[in-house]
Amino acid sequence: MKKILLLVAIFLVAKTFGQTPEEKLAAAGITLPNLSAPVANYVNAVRTGNLLFLSGKGPSDQTGKYMIGKLGSNLTIEEGYAAARLTAINQLAVLKKELGDLSKIKRIVKVLGLVNSSSDFYDQPKVMNGFSDLMVLAFGEKGKHARSAIGTNTLPFNMAVEVELIVEIEN
Amino acid sequence: MKKILLLVAIFLVAKTFGQTPEEKLAAAGITLPNLSAPVANYVNAVRTGNLLFLSGKGPSDQTGKYMIGKLGSNLTIEEGYAAARLTAINQLAVLKKELGDLSKIKRIVKVLGLVNSSSDFYDQPKVMNGFSDLMVLAFGEKGKHARSAIGTNTLPFNMAVEVELIVEIEN
Amino acid sequence: MKKILLLVAIFLVAKTFGQTPEEKLAAAGITLPNLSAPVANYVNAVRTGNLLFLSGKGPSDQTGKYMIGKLGSNLTIEEGYAAARLTAINQLAVLKKELGDLSKIKRIVKVLGLVNSSSDFYDQPKVMNGFSDLMVLAFGEKGKHARSAIGTNTLPFNMAVEVELIVEIEN
Repeated sequence: MKKILLLVAIFLVAKTFGQTPEEKLAAAGITLPNLSAPVANYVNAVRTGNLLFLSGKGPSDQTGKYMIGKLGSNLTIEEGYAAARLTAINQLAVLKKELGDLSKIKRIVKVLGLVNSSSDFYDQPKVMNGFSDLMVLAFGEKGKHARSAIGTNTLPFNMAVEVELIVEIEN
Repeated sequence: MKKILLLVAIFLVAKTFGQTPEEKLAAAGITLPNLSAPVANYVNAVRTGNLLFLSGKGPSDQTGKYMIGKLGSNLTIEEGYAAARLTAINQLAVLKKELGDLSKIKRIVKVLGLVNSSSDFYDQPKVMNGFSDLMVLAFGEKGKHARSAIGTNTLPFNMAVEVELIVEIEN
Repeated sequence: MKKILLLVAIFLVAKTFGQTPEEKLAAAGITLPNLSAPVANYVNAVRTGNLLFLSGKGPSDQTGKYMIGKLGSNLTIEEGYAAARLTAINQLAVLKKELGDLSKIKRIVKVLGLVNSSSDFYDQPKVMNGFSDLMVLAFGEKGKHARSAIGTNTLPFNMAVEVELIVEIEN
């Protein structure tokens, strides 16, 4: 019995390791949205060498509506975590569109996360874990990044969080 | 008559495409200022490989006086746009000084724009368009960048905006 | 007598130039702390090519306790400068742990400094000089970086400053 359980465990681990980021996201019930390009004089992402620099994005849903509000005033940490997680999904959609295949990502290098906060809210890292956890769900160790989590008094559209990132691409 | 107009149009487009960034700026009536180096232990720009990282700059005029104030309190979006545009001119002056020739720029890669904002001001992107539009005026498609536009409750000298950027240089 | 003083001066300058960053820090009475890795899904630093991207850090002491508070409310510029200096020491500890030897650093490339500020505090650059001065103490000209100093209404744990940076490593 113990041997069978061990074999099952090995099988499950191997299966997870063999999964593409797209398969891991699907297994977690996550669908990547279709994102439109910005309407102003900037773009969602610019590649230079093996680095891809992404524009700041926020927690918009499939209809383009943002999760809005300020942590410490009218949003809980759990809601902030959900907003950061949704922002991660949106940035993965940008990456999917740019690269075609998320397996081309060698490393999530650097994340800058801004959290719409009242002046006495100090738990920005707990909010930004919603972003970081999703990156590791999709990419495993490659998803672990350098990160800054920062508060700010306001963000565009009053969205709850805004996150930009730098990604390294395989040759 | 139609043929002549078409020829004139083709000529004008070709002329614009052939213009250097310096010529495009001059055609728009823009003169790059002389900027002094910082007096503290940092510099205006550092090059590593083909990337040039620029320090944050703000909307100072030729005399060094800043456009000051907070969007949502005592500055309109139009004034904010003008401040972001002036900041772009100042960063172009830094680039001109570093490179000698703006044609050496391969791509404006990444822009981080901070907008001095009251807590209920949400139009940071409209303000930052003043920066982005000038980059595209000077560099065309090469001027389109990844961008984050962010609010903050205060900036050095109470200046209206502060913008830093990363630029890729031709080999 | 003048000749002897000149020789002494040359000797002292030569000695300083020959010192490693570690020796310069020790000469200034600075001990690098032992920093723990983050407990969430991110890391202290990620290397890509010759660039090392560091996570945002703050002014924690050897016991992990932060210097907290807001510039313009309950901290003086001198206290803010000390907080930025302590943050620099902590980031040097990260670099020492990552690289083993601080002499491997070719250049401090880019620094982003966030200063916990009341809405009418405008001296973020004076605060961030505490960070920049320590980088130049440790690395001399190599320590001069591009920099943005920015205000924000709040930071994690209510710490006084948070600083992230990009460092270029020797081949």
